Amino acid sequence: MANISWWWKVKGCEVLGRRTKIFRGCSFSNREYFSIKLPRPRLIRWISEAYKDVELRRNMALTPVESAKKAAACLAVDDYVKDNKIIGIGSGSTIVYAVERLSERVQQENLKLVCIPTSFQARQLILQHNLTLGDLETNPSIDLAIDGADEVDNDLTLIKGGGGCLTQEKIVASCAKEFIVICDQGKDSMILGEKYKKGIPIEVIPMAYVPIRNKIFSRYGGELILRMGKAKAGPVVTDNGNFILDWQFPQVSLDWDHINKELKMIPGVVETGLFVGMATKVFIGRSDGTVKEKLKSR
Amino acid sequence: MANISWWWKVKGCEVLGRRTKIFRGCSFSNREYFSIKLPRPRLIRWISEAYKDVELRRNMALTPVESAKKAAACLAVDDYVKDNKIIGIGSGSTIVYAVERLSERVQQENLKLVCIPTSFQARQLILQHNLTLGDLETNPSIDLAIDGADEVDNDLTLIKGGGGCLTQEKIVASCAKEFIVICDQGKDSMILGEKYKKGIPIEVIPMAYVPIRNKIFSRYGGELILRMGKAKAGPVVTDNGNFILDWQFPQVSLDWDHINKELKMIPGVVETGLFVGMATKVFIGRSDGTVKEKLKSR
Amino acid sequence: MANISWWWKVKGCEVLGRRTKIFRGCSFSNREYFSIKLPRPRLIRWISEAYKDVELRRNMALTPVESAKKAAACLAVDDYVKDNKIIGIGSGSTIVYAVERLSERVQQENLKLVCIPTSFQARQLILQHNLTLGDLETNPSIDLAIDGADEVDNDLTLIKGGGGCLTQEKIVASCAKEFIVICDQGKDSMILGEKYKKGIPIEVIPMAYVPIRNKIFSRYGGELILRMGKAKAGPVVTDNGNFILDWQFPQVSLDWDHINKELKMIPGVVETGLFVGMATKVFIGRSDGTVKEKLKSR
Amino acid sequence: MANISWWWKVKGCEVLGRRTKIFRGCSFSNREYFSIKLPRPRLIRWISEAYKDVELRRNMALTPVESAKKAAACLAVDDYVKDNKIIGIGSGSTIVYAVERLSERVQQENLKLVCIPTSFQARQLILQHNLTLGDLETNPSIDLAIDGADEVDNDLTLIKGGGGCLTQEKIVASCAKEFIVICDQGKDSMILGEKYKKGIPIEVIPMAYVPIRNKIFSRYGGELILRMGKAKAGPVVTDNGNFILDWQFPQVSLDWDHINKELKMIPGVVETGLFVGMATKVFIGRSDGTVKEKLKSR
Repeated sequence: MANISWWWKVKGCEVLGRRTKIFRGCSFSNREYFSIKLPRPRLIRWISEAYKDVELRRNMALTPVESAKKAAACLAVDDYVKDNKIIGIGSGSTIVYAVERLSERVQQENLKLVCIPTSFQARQLILQHNLTLGDLETNPSIDLAIDGADEVDNDLTLIKGGGGCLTQEKIVASCAKEFIVICDQGKDSMILGEKYKKGIPIEVIPMAYVPIRNKIFSRYGGELILRMGKAKAGPVVTDNGNFILDWQFPQVSLDWDHINKELKMIPGVVETGLFVGMATKVFIGRSDGTVKEKLKSR
Repeated sequence: MANISWWWKVKGCEVLGRRTKIFRGCSFSNREYFSIKLPRPRLIRWISEAYKDVELRRNMALTPVESAKKAAACLAVDDYVKDNKIIGIGSGSTIVYAVERLSERVQQENLKLVCIPTSFQARQLILQHNLTLGDLETNPSIDLAIDGADEVDNDLTLIKGGGGCLTQEKIVASCAKEFIVICDQGKDSMILGEKYKKGIPIEVIPMAYVPIRNKIFSRYGGELILRMGKAKAGPVVTDNGNFILDWQFPQVSLDWDHINKELKMIPGVVETGLFVGMATKVFIGRSDGTVKEKLKSR
Repeated sequence: MANISWWWKVKGCEVLGRRTKIFRGCSFSNREYFSIKLPRPRLIRWISEAYKDVELRRNMALTPVESAKKAAACLAVDDYVKDNKIIGIGSGSTIVYAVERLSERVQQENLKLVCIPTSFQARQLILQHNLTLGDLETNPSIDLAIDGADEVDNDLTLIKGGGGCLTQEKIVASCAKEFIVICDQGKDSMILGEKYKKGIPIEVIPMAYVPIRNKIFSRYGGELILRMGKAKAGPVVTDNGNFILDWQFPQVSLDWDHINKELKMIPGVVETGLFVGMATKVFIGRSDGTVKEKLKSR
Repeated sequence: MANISWWWKVKGCEVLGRRTKIFRGCSFSNREYFSIKLPRPRLIRWISEAYKDVELRRNMALTPVESAKKAAACLAVDDYVKDNKIIGIGSGSTIVYAVERLSERVQQENLKLVCIPTSFQARQLILQHNLTLGDLETNPSIDLAIDGADEVDNDLTLIKGGGGCLTQEKIVASCAKEFIVICDQGKDSMILGEKYKKGIPIEVIPMAYVPIRNKIFSRYGGELILRMGKAKAGPVVTDNGNFILDWQFPQVSLDWDHINKELKMIPGVVETGLFVGMATKVFIGRSDGTVKEKLKSR
């Protein structure tokens, strides 16, 4: 059976050195795991040679959360992707499964797709799965965007931006005729803020982070935290060269459409992680492999 | 009489080399002119030594347009600047006169002011006039911002951003209790678009310039031009690392408040050059040295 | 005869609006001219409708300088480009002809090429001529780079960076097995500095522009000018977010290899516009259509 | 006794919200700890009100490593800082103690100092200790720079850049007449690479990270790891908008001066974390509070 793969955990980095050989014949799956598709003996030999500190895991034995993500991703790709389409590719751990499934379908069904990435990770995924890379300059209109989310409420309002790519993700979603969200049930909430506790990410021009913080605080309360780097000193710098404020809003049910507009209108706010009225449908994977489909309540 | 100065035109650059000596004892006035305040003989000697290609002009003999700018700038500074204030300093050729007048008043009246720049030029002006430089991080609330404009209509709606600093200028203006605009009468219009023909500048995330262009065009018409560099190949890159679309809107009277909100809500739009409902008062200099004060019509 | 094209000068911008229709069926040739390949009657009708201020010129009647550029570009492409190669595409007005010739050869000979751009303009050229776009991430090793230059001396030392893309151009050239330079004879000099008078461009981290200026001046003399924007206020910002110092060095014959190393070692210098020992061959077009080939003197 | 302070660990972020009040009358000490100087009862009341999850620790009870850092920092500041000087302020946890000591001396001895920051953190430290903030534009020549290091060998060659500020730190150090390094003994090595195992940080232009990786690997071996973000998806973006490659070089004694020059000459390399021949003196704190002073062996 051809499609077994093996995962191992490395340090979450692309590497060059003795390890480069692992790139040959294998696909880079996400920031923390490499999946390889090779005969087992060869793999085992490599591991025993050089990768003593590496954790090997069979792809089939996914954890319950990973199974949930995969189920949602596969169903979304199967339901929505058709031939000759421009597809926006989101970011995050769930998207890995969507790209793997896309790649399978492209090979099996000989689909012609152009994939538009929302981040460095998405771009890597597209290239490593031999999908056709495109961009908004030549493909300003997208048929379908698929992305994850940090939280989804019952109105299909999303919090996105835990990974700091909110602006690119919202740009791509806004160019898509249909915007499909995939996630596991840990992101599924009744009221926004129940599940994702780090706050709504807001990308801001660096010189303005203090006045923006003050304006949002005096208008709405809560706490606003300048996101600090862990692998660098000082604030996180986004791929657009900006800072991120994570707004832990006071837990009350709010008119998110209105708030999103007010936030974005503050001079210096580049984009918010609130996606209101954008999602067409949400696929929420459960650990048993079933998928809940969520449409706007009305 | 102490306050005569001399101007000469250089190539619009800061220079180092033989010319550095002109920085000693002189103030840098704007991008095109250096003004110096020195005894004439010493000046003349310098000029004859090394600056053969330089155009010397007495400050007092301003052109009509420069006189108009200066009159507006001086009146605004005299009317609005008080002791112990935080002042936002805009960009452009009119601001040069405002900073000169600020500097005079600081020296004569021993004012304590902190000046917040909106651009590289504003920062240079503040430093060269020995004013106290501040920033929004330590001074997020500003008492008064003074800035120029590319056009001002009768509702005090402004077009700004000809110099590409619209985002920083709007951030600073939005932090100010009062926002005073100074310009010459060539910027004064009944209906927006009468005077400034290059279009409303819109700062955008580079990856999104084509879809944003298409969205604005299909919604409103007109023409959208990606601003190209002249001193560099390719598009102008703003100080925030973004591109600028200049939108030459179809000439009809429009609801600018509504349009500004719609434009800014497009994902990838960082800021627009429309300043609606922000200006407290506009001082419009005329070539005869008189100044028209414009308040919101209602 | 299929290959006649027409040029007209617009304002050096990409446009959207009524003019977008000119993009259909036509190629974007350089920053100042659009060339179109359409039946003349349709063109003339368009022109008379809407483009009154547009200057129409038949492509075949090139100016002497343009003829020289084209001759050099075509010969270089014909001599060096072979099937199944990765090609680096430089920036500037001469490169336009190289890409046109590449495109012709790809169509006629069915070549399989991947083109790596050095700038926004190069990227646009590649896309508009339907060539295959690549990047250094997936193609870190290039077979051949073709680029222009602001000046070429007899040692094949180049000054590049008049358009501000020096860093990207040097990166691409440094990844190429062969680096071919094309230019007209106005760039051909015995001793560096004879022809290009604006100085050697040096890309610098913005916070360091003053100390770098001082260090170079005190070590070598000359003049160092912070390049100011013309389509924006303040300094030119490069595509990498940096500033450019143009160094007008004192006119003496210098050891450019040594100087280039000393300049680059200054902390804050990102790259210099000196290309020493990089060019394989230089094709210098003359206005009569002949081409001089320059190899390193030794 | 006036100088007792209390520390508590928060999430390593600047906060706004109920917690903003902790900024009043207190100094921000480093990225992980806030130190406050307030009467204990008021502090305890605050803590019990709102900061249940906060870890309170008396400043005086420093851990051995912190004591070592503090000892080195204080001695360096006492030995080298004199009145009327321009001081470069480095980044990192050891620098916190240096700035605290600087602040004490400025208050006690009424010193007039201008402080030039190398990072966001350094800037915050300077402002929070009420020191005078300057920059390289107005103070291109620095009397003394004080900075930490990730490792120091016996030739006073440093590895810096664990926090990603290597370029700014090297720029500031290169402008200083004297460059003093402070660290604890965990950074003190005989041969470079003994202590700091993450590799030499190399800041690179994003488009060039793969070819640079390949060039260094094929020339020197080792492993080159693209530093990935932890608080953001994708690679770490530096304050200059670039990527970082961490080069785990093969462990042999190398000619670091030569290697540093070769690395920096690779097009696309912005700066390396190798500081060769720059340090004037190194103060290495020990946990018993004594300080070893290291000068170049020769």
